[in-house]
Amino acid sequence: MKVIIIGGVAAGAKAAAKIRRLAPDTEINLYTDDDYVSYSSCGLPYYIGGAFEDFRMLLVRTPAEFEKQKIHIHLRHKVIKIMPDTKEVLINVIDKNKNITKPYDKLVIATGARARIPEIINVNLPQVLPLRTLNDGKKLKELTVKSNKAIIIGGGYIGLELIEAFVKRGIHVTMVHNSSHLLTRLDADMSELVYDQLMSISHSRFDILLNENVIEFVGDKNRFYGAKLSSGQFIDGDFAVLATGIIPNSEIALEAGIELGVTKAIKVNEKMETSVKDIYACGDCCEENLIIDNKPTWYPLGSTANKEGRCAAMNVCGISESFGGVLGSAVTRCMDLTVSQTGMSEKTARLRGIEPISVTVTKDDKVGYMPDSNNITLKLTAEKSTGRLIGGQAIGSMDADKRINTLASAILARLTAAEFCMNDLTYAPPFSPTIDPLLNAAMMLRDKIINL
Amino acid sequence: MKVIIIGGVAAGAKAAAKIRRLAPDTEINLYTDDDYVSYSSCGLPYYIGGAFEDFRMLLVRTPAEFEKQKIHIHLRHKVIKIMPDTKEVLINVIDKNKNITKPYDKLVIATGARARIPEIINVNLPQVLPLRTLNDGKKLKELTVKSNKAIIIGGGYIGLELIEAFVKRGIHVTMVHNSSHLLTRLDADMSELVYDQLMSISHSRFDILLNENVIEFVGDKNRFYGAKLSSGQFIDGDFAVLATGIIPNSEIALEAGIELGVTKAIKVNEKMETSVKDIYACGDCCEENLIIDNKPTWYPLGSTANKEGRCAAMNVCGISESFGGVLGSAVTRCMDLTVSQTGMSEKTARLRGIEPISVTVTKDDKVGYMPDSNNITLKLTAEKSTGRLIGGQAIGSMDADKRINTLASAILARLTAAEFCMNDLTYAPPFSPTIDPLLNAAMMLRDKIINL
Repeated sequence: MKVIIIGGVAAGAKAAAKIRRLAPDTEINLYTDDDYVSYSSCGLPYYIGGAFEDFRMLLVRTPAEFEKQKIHIHLRHKVIKIMPDTKEVLINVIDKNKNITKPYDKLVIATGARARIPEIINVNLPQVLPLRTLNDGKKLKELTVKSNKAIIIGGGYIGLELIEAFVKRGIHVTMVHNSSHLLTRLDADMSELVYDQLMSISHSRFDILLNENVIEFVGDKNRFYGAKLSSGQFIDGDFAVLATGIIPNSEIALEAGIELGVTKAIKVNEKMETSVKDIYACGDCCEENLIIDNKPTWYPLGSTANKEGRCAAMNVCGISESFGGVLGSAVTRCMDLTVSQTGMSEKTARLRGIEPISVTVTKDDKVGYMPDSNNITLKLTAEKSTGRLIGGQAIGSMDADKRINTLASAILARLTAAEFCMNDLTYAPPFSPTIDPLLNAAMMLRDKIINL
Repeated sequence: MKVIIIGGVAAGAKAAAKIRRLAPDTEINLYTDDDYVSYSSCGLPYYIGGAFEDFRMLLVRTPAEFEKQKIHIHLRHKVIKIMPDTKEVLINVIDKNKNITKPYDKLVIATGARARIPEIINVNLPQVLPLRTLNDGKKLKELTVKSNKAIIIGGGYIGLELIEAFVKRGIHVTMVHNSSHLLTRLDADMSELVYDQLMSISHSRFDILLNENVIEFVGDKNRFYGAKLSSGQFIDGDFAVLATGIIPNSEIALEAGIELGVTKAIKVNEKMETSVKDIYACGDCCEENLIIDNKPTWYPLGSTANKEGRCAAMNVCGISESFGGVLGSAVTRCMDLTVSQTGMSEKTARLRGIEPISVTVTKDDKVGYMPDSNNITLKLTAEKSTGRLIGGQAIGSMDADKRINTLASAILARLTAAEFCMNDLTYAPPFSPTIDPLLNAAMMLRDKIINL
């Protein structure tokens, strides 16, 4: 059996390794237009920030290691066309500028997503770049070493993680965000709290400008001066990062007659099969099922890519396996602030036709007398008609994410707020207050639902 | 309505405050033989260790604050008899050495638990003391200030927390434990790992002697030399702590004809009612329902006491409320090591008639390239016949407990290992590996069950 995999960052690399374990005699060829394969792109902000200095720490497996397992990695080979009728792919060999055709029995599309490049004058200057690939990360790290001022366009996860990275490098940061709220997956009230808390720990090391648009980058290929905003303001900077979201690399699938989903990512069933026989998709290029309402969503995240790659591999090898979907669990850190989320926000619930009910509590995250105790703000959301938990948002110190995971289990299990109140969570002074904030919030939500 | 509450550390104090909120006109009298009321006894090791220096940080509410709410606190008033027939209690006023009788309409027993004092020669020396009350904590803190060497008898939670406290005070510690395994609620394999990891971070600051018994303390009221072991060894020390477990203060209930449970703690129903009308019990003196098998257990913990006090208060006030029971979730820290647990160990499962199946994994707790990444060892246990998750044990760095809580939600919701594998846990490099160790463990457990 000949398997071709397109793309090799997370899902593609995982699929290749898993197929090899399950089917030792399969011929596996992985094509990627990237210079690297099998790396942790989520780690790039920490590499840039100096948590470690050698980018090779980000590599999960090298091409040589894959080759030992007879997985053939073809770097700088861009698959430009899928031909399902003849079961072939057309590949552009970038360094030779020639095209070749290769046959497959099973094809795995793991083309990922790419940075969305906004329409800004001079967006192609060499000092303006996204952070998506390992090459992006290496270039950005080089820029940080010789710079004093950075501009970040966009206030999502990557943007916030880069604030931390640049501040750790002693670089002043100006973030320019085109809407009134950072982290658009959060409800507005929680997003405002993130903004307020970040401002309170900024100490002039970074600025965040909301409701501002960059209209032009000023400079040339040798020098960079900064960015002009639509408000007329000019922001000084030595370089700029485009953290303005990502787009699924699904065009190649669409052109091959493969069905896309409502999110414009590739539509797959629970076996990661696309609409075309013997073609699978996994990772950031495909859409997911939101477990809560069993409707499509798009959560391009490393953990999901990994699971989908594994699931696709098993089905490629004839072992029936299902990927159940996602809850939308995520976490990010900016300086000492952790922001985490699972399930639906109130906003998302309404968009998806569910009437939500929520409570928000701010509590100590440990017993107050412990020297490192801190605040955590938790927003818990349930479906109003049934009381079933559907989401949570947390802002606080390091383990805010773990409280979100405690909630994720409950959402997965379709517990109501009242049922969750029976939970027995661990207690000791260095870890939580006597009654964990999550239980406080659940009890308040239960009472709010009862008193409706 | 006249309410009398016996005991005022956690459950009793919580019950008093809650009754006042629900029933402003009730007469509330709280009697305790202690010198203090409403304090965090779980915080004593951190007070002793110097996390804070003023013991008043441990006080949740003072008698004066209670009095403002017309809750009458009677310190050093020991209730010595309950007379259900006449609905009275007999109280010894310690400082006047006289007895008084007080009537009640509703009685709440929150007598807690006391330290188990082992039979050791000279156990009554003033340099030998348990750590249970605030007074114990104050005495122990005084001893630490003028000492160089401590002896801890018993290797449970309190013993381990005191190792940390004494080491932080620069005092060398010898722990003497009378069995082969620390933390007896853990399975033997996990307990051995705790021992090994503690030894690896000891750096001669503390010793732990297993399978050893203290037979005699050597000294007099003015001087203390140390402890003789049954093996003949002599351990130097300036003082000794008895951390040899606790016993429920249930005798007063038994003598009044109130039924005790199989654990010798007071038997209560889900409304915290005892077998005698108008008498409630809550906190460490009463037994709980283990949610997993709906059979009695005894988990004397502060979080549970708090919930039970609240539940008893509501039912005292005529508001029907149920306490559903416990999962046995707990956490402790010793130095940089966190040990946490929920549900049944394999050992406990067998004792309770459930055939368990388990897996144990050791993984990075964060992505390996993050500078503060560490190991976490997780043992997950399911019921063999159904695959339902029934317990977990975690040993690792600070947030091992939060992973246990993620599991607690799943156990509460009666998820199987296979169902838990669908969970979507947050991922970012500072927080967890791409696939959280908890999911790794669940997938291994699912596969082990499938291949049975």
